[in-house]
Amino acid sequence: MRVRATTAYDGTAFYGFQRQAGFRSVQGEIETALAAIGGEQPVVRGAGRTDAGVHATGQVVAFDIEWRHELDALERAININLPADVAVCELRECAPGFSPRFDALSRTYEYTLYSSAARQPMRDRYAWQVAGGVELAAMRAAAELLVGEHDFAAFGSATTDSEVTIRKVMRAEWREHGSDRVFLIEANAFLYRMVRRLVNALVKVGRGRLTQSDVADALASRDQNRISGLAPACGLCLVNVKYQV
Amino acid sequence: MRVRATTAYDGTAFYGFQRQAGFRSVQGEIETALAAIGGEQPVVRGAGRTDAGVHATGQVVAFDIEWRHELDALERAININLPADVAVCELRECAPGFSPRFDALSRTYEYTLYSSAARQPMRDRYAWQVAGGVELAAMRAAAELLVGEHDFAAFGSATTDSEVTIRKVMRAEWREHGSDRVFLIEANAFLYRMVRRLVNALVKVGRGRLTQSDVADALASRDQNRISGLAPACGLCLVNVKYQV
Repeated sequence: MRVRATTAYDGTAFYGFQRQAGFRSVQGEIETALAAIGGEQPVVRGAGRTDAGVHATGQVVAFDIEWRHELDALERAININLPADVAVCELRECAPGFSPRFDALSRTYEYTLYSSAARQPMRDRYAWQVAGGVELAAMRAAAELLVGEHDFAAFGSATTDSEVTIRKVMRAEWREHGSDRVFLIEANAFLYRMVRRLVNALVKVGRGRLTQSDVADALASRDQNRISGLAPACGLCLVNVKYQV
Repeated sequence: MRVRATTAYDGTAFYGFQRQAGFRSVQGEIETALAAIGGEQPVVRGAGRTDAGVHATGQVVAFDIEWRHELDALERAININLPADVAVCELRECAPGFSPRFDALSRTYEYTLYSSAARQPMRDRYAWQVAGGVELAAMRAAAELLVGEHDFAAFGSATTDSEVTIRKVMRAEWREHGSDRVFLIEANAFLYRMVRRLVNALVKVGRGRLTQSDVADALASRDQNRISGLAPACGLCLVNVKYQV
């Protein structure tokens, strides 16, 4: 049967979600765990190929397995065989043709900034330190420009599967959690490094180094060189993937 | 001159605050950083000797250094020479006789529980997973027993300096942050592993495995064997040290 599972990981010590020979990947760890409980040449598919250092609380994976017991027992068996920085939960049987990637209606990422003059070792693993503060109203206005269907070529590369750089953003908003600023973005799909490039641009707006029109102009230009830079991976987390069922 | 500084660290990769030959310690890292900026055989003193794996956002240290520039420049120079998991901030000149340990009026620790059936890799570094939930009212009632001056021999060992196991607890309370439960305890000083032993006992109360009277009886007995066990180090953080000035 095919099983779908939510997957959470601390991305710090991974070279990304996707299996790569000789490097530690989330996909590779889950496949190793499945093999340990009797899966033959298990293949794990994921909804999003998160980059090295990027975290997840809501990645979705699917795999085929022969299993005659309860799914709760399968969940425990897999988790016992996984290292401490990755875990699966919410297992359920899905259609044999279910693809976490191609059946996904949208992905939601969160990017966390913490505002502090001093480096805070207990925050650096999961957030980006922004010294001096950022202007939230300006960042919110710039984020609104992203909502809708746009060609995001200026903020990311197409994956190898497709040359198309048009994506549909359903939500792009900044939230306040205490002194943290959290950027939440939901889109049908994302270009390579798109969220980190967008956060880099929006934070520049928040610091007064770019204006809202600079972001609008860059988007319209489809030119990757207009706004350079990339927010660090540590602040980024894949929090949800939405499906029809 | 003598300088006092707040110190924050992710304790995961340290064998504790205190310098130990052949092991990585917070004290050792700060002394190495001071030596790199010209301190001769620098000695760093701390307010509390946190254990291996225990974190801090409000540890206080002091050291002597010859420094002719601003303290902001000293702070930057030290932090540049420190590894990513430790940082100093809020540097200020203090009296030549200032002792972070013996002049402290109180220490405050926080211990964080997260409630989740599934392991959450992004929480495990700084919190203790408690599956199945805990009854907050019962844990609060048991925590109230700790406030005041008591002989805490049942919940920790005296340090080598003194045989006295009487400590004065000013606050011992459970707070709710979303689904997290955070235990905050302030005392003039703590016995070895006292907070982790207390949290272990209180969580047993929250799970219905011990009653409030069991905790009261254990406290009165002064017997370490009455309630065995220890909450894991990862959930514990030294958040504040109070001084007269």
